[in-house]
Amino acid sequence: MNHQLYDFGMIGLGVMGRNFLLNVADDGFAALGTDINEESVRALNAEGEGMNVKGVHTQKEFVELLSKPRKIMLLVPAGKIVDTVIEGLLPLLDNGDIIIDGGNSHFDDTNRRYEYLKTKNIRFLGTGVSGGAEGARRGPSIMPGGDRSAWEVVQPILETVAAKVNGEPCVTYIGESSSGHYVKMVHNGIEYGLMQLIAEAYDILRRVGKMNNDEMSALFSQWNQGRLNSYLIEITASILKMRDDKMDGHLLDVILDKAKQKGTGKWTSQTAMDLGVPVPTIDSAVTMRGISAFKEFRQDMSALFDVVHPEAPAIKGEGLAAAVEESLYFSFVICYAQGMHLLAEASAELKYDLDLEGVARIWRGGCIIRAALLEKIRQAFGGHPELKNMISADEFRDELYRSRDAITEVLHLANERGIPTMCMSSALQYFDAFRSERLPLNMVQAQRDYFGSHTYERIDQKGVFHTQWD
Amino acid sequence: MNHQLYDFGMIGLGVMGRNFLLNVADDGFAALGTDINEESVRALNAEGEGMNVKGVHTQKEFVELLSKPRKIMLLVPAGKIVDTVIEGLLPLLDNGDIIIDGGNSHFDDTNRRYEYLKTKNIRFLGTGVSGGAEGARRGPSIMPGGDRSAWEVVQPILETVAAKVNGEPCVTYIGESSSGHYVKMVHNGIEYGLMQLIAEAYDILRRVGKMNNDEMSALFSQWNQGRLNSYLIEITASILKMRDDKMDGHLLDVILDKAKQKGTGKWTSQTAMDLGVPVPTIDSAVTMRGISAFKEFRQDMSALFDVVHPEAPAIKGEGLAAAVEESLYFSFVICYAQGMHLLAEASAELKYDLDLEGVARIWRGGCIIRAALLEKIRQAFGGHPELKNMISADEFRDELYRSRDAITEVLHLANERGIPTMCMSSALQYFDAFRSERLPLNMVQAQRDYFGSHTYERIDQKGVFHTQWD
Repeated sequence: MNHQLYDFGMIGLGVMGRNFLLNVADDGFAALGTDINEESVRALNAEGEGMNVKGVHTQKEFVELLSKPRKIMLLVPAGKIVDTVIEGLLPLLDNGDIIIDGGNSHFDDTNRRYEYLKTKNIRFLGTGVSGGAEGARRGPSIMPGGDRSAWEVVQPILETVAAKVNGEPCVTYIGESSSGHYVKMVHNGIEYGLMQLIAEAYDILRRVGKMNNDEMSALFSQWNQGRLNSYLIEITASILKMRDDKMDGHLLDVILDKAKQKGTGKWTSQTAMDLGVPVPTIDSAVTMRGISAFKEFRQDMSALFDVVHPEAPAIKGEGLAAAVEESLYFSFVICYAQGMHLLAEASAELKYDLDLEGVARIWRGGCIIRAALLEKIRQAFGGHPELKNMISADEFRDELYRSRDAITEVLHLANERGIPTMCMSSALQYFDAFRSERLPLNMVQAQRDYFGSHTYERIDQKGVFHTQWD
Repeated sequence: MNHQLYDFGMIGLGVMGRNFLLNVADDGFAALGTDINEESVRALNAEGEGMNVKGVHTQKEFVELLSKPRKIMLLVPAGKIVDTVIEGLLPLLDNGDIIIDGGNSHFDDTNRRYEYLKTKNIRFLGTGVSGGAEGARRGPSIMPGGDRSAWEVVQPILETVAAKVNGEPCVTYIGESSSGHYVKMVHNGIEYGLMQLIAEAYDILRRVGKMNNDEMSALFSQWNQGRLNSYLIEITASILKMRDDKMDGHLLDVILDKAKQKGTGKWTSQTAMDLGVPVPTIDSAVTMRGISAFKEFRQDMSALFDVVHPEAPAIKGEGLAAAVEESLYFSFVICYAQGMHLLAEASAELKYDLDLEGVARIWRGGCIIRAALLEKIRQAFGGHPELKNMISADEFRDELYRSRDAITEVLHLANERGIPTMCMSSALQYFDAFRSERLPLNMVQAQRDYFGSHTYERIDQKGVFHTQWD
């Protein structure tokens, strides 16, 4: 055969897939794509005009045009479609070829596929990719887990494609089996938390501080210059100032307040419960998306009650803004801490052997939760590889403790006025609960022993005890 | 054969199983039990001396001594053991015999067993039983779901055995397939919430109010005479006054504050997330059990920080007690509301066709979450069968709204002093979020569209929109 062979293949040419492939081609690799949707193939060929990128219409042609071992990424919707695509590919592949699932697959599915493909002599990398369409095009954060020898083959390509922070690529080998997708899932869980925290801060500024959208936009821009510096704060500033093209006013004011979800936040909460790791700020973000979906009931409820304390004054000015910034920073740190703690426990429990410093490092760029804060998180875990919960780390603990008064005050201002702060409240509760040498769960243990003879332990002697309570 | 045949059989003669069987015999039915543990069989024969109850050592003898159709309840640990016992029984049974799984099986397992046993012509009832050892002996609350014709056969026995409230038995046919175990699971989720709420109230009275155990015991006894009247408040009063037999002092003070869990609370939170139903107060109770388990880290953390505001004065007296009572009542109502809402949504989603009034009715007696409040809940759902979330019902909404100021104040007193109130906080947040016609989730939708092109809806026109934000 004398036609050109391609270095890297992509199945699934939606916006993410096309952008990722154009990014690969930008970096000097020959990039090939296919999709059952013919229009997406044509879009790739149009967008890749003049670049070393090509879209083909059949999987047969696609497979024949890839250099061996073939490096094939899937960016298709998570679920059964991934299995269908894999089954379709298998008869066309050779031993040692590499499949990279770049979607948001559940880690249970990834474990299953990893074991299955081993029996077929296909090397599998369950790989988280974050950064949205823009990240895929300009440099995403990439979290590959699974077959280490496959990682070594694709490493030069993925390191070139990934976002860079101070010259370091935002990709590293995460670990065995499903660890890449697990880390990406937790990334998304943190993302849920940060988004809801920002939403609550916006609500407090708007309803306690009576700030308008442009004022809030300026404030978020200012915050983005400081310790809150992050992608999500940056886009919040842009969103707040965006005018609507359909009417005179701000677009944000006419966006429906019903949030959808695709599952990764929920999965994070569910697996955390299975491992016994508390992630209440992520749980609360999932809860708030759920409550937001009951729009009709909320409308009915709201009509039943008066506004809470309409006489409460607007609290304007820099005092409120500073207190909300402090509350938001506090809550951001707690939200990352919960995600990292989950990873630390999952690393042992699921035998991923994660390098938490490395995770923090590759999240500093490219992905949705990138933030200046991640450099400090990287330092905290780098200095103490045995660290599990970073709220006790030198880098954070005093700052957290000092912010307690501010967040307590902000939550009170909101509660007094009936403004919900589910996520932010959970962050304060989490910190105070972990600061408590003694929690009132002795009462829970006593109750369990009382009605169910479940026994209890004592603080003054070893052993397991049961009391005849009545 | 001329030996006596027995009306009802039990496999699994732990305390629960023996007590349930003695209860059956009390009520005039001939009761038979077996267990692989020979000591449990001997214990049954000893405890049942002089009653129409008998323990036998082999399943063969057990099956031969039961009248047909056989009515066999299992009270064995949930999980694989249930399958093992069923497989052992199957060759010995006849078409139409009835198996009742009375343990805390996961509803997915119950669905599977129900379908499997149908193919074997065995009628299956997945049945929740609540009330602990004492309830099993004196009258539990019983939640049977599955084969309706089997229910009709066992109805006379279960109605006699169950607790009674105003002459009404605390048992009813719950619905198809796994509905009985689903309802029991949610019962336990509510139980988790109520227990944690009581623990937090105790912590506030102790640390804000500086009340001693005997004072708190008297207070809980007093509360038990009012709208908080319930089994869990009653046993809390007993627990608080219990002296330790090993040293001079109260037993509660030396019980270790690490709470265990067996899974039903966690399952409630996980399935609620799958159905998109918010149950944050149950989630928070699961979270607090999780945090309590990290005792060593809590000790380390507590050593790192000063006590929060040690100068904050003790707030004694009836004002605090009344505000805590109001907060606890508010939170109790919210906790039941979350559980009932989950049942309402699960009823449609999982095709259980639940009668929520009936559920509230059979929870009024026998079970761990029995409470005077359940009569009001029964009325709320009885009067409005289409009701899904009772926080909007006449029976509750004004009372809830009026209690907002009290719980806001109590939470602030606790937050100021660094006393965690994860569960109680979540209750207030839940109420205020559902009271909000407009939540700040428009920001979340804007962010999702910004970075992931996930689109959004508008409040001023129909359709699905995407904006080029940057």
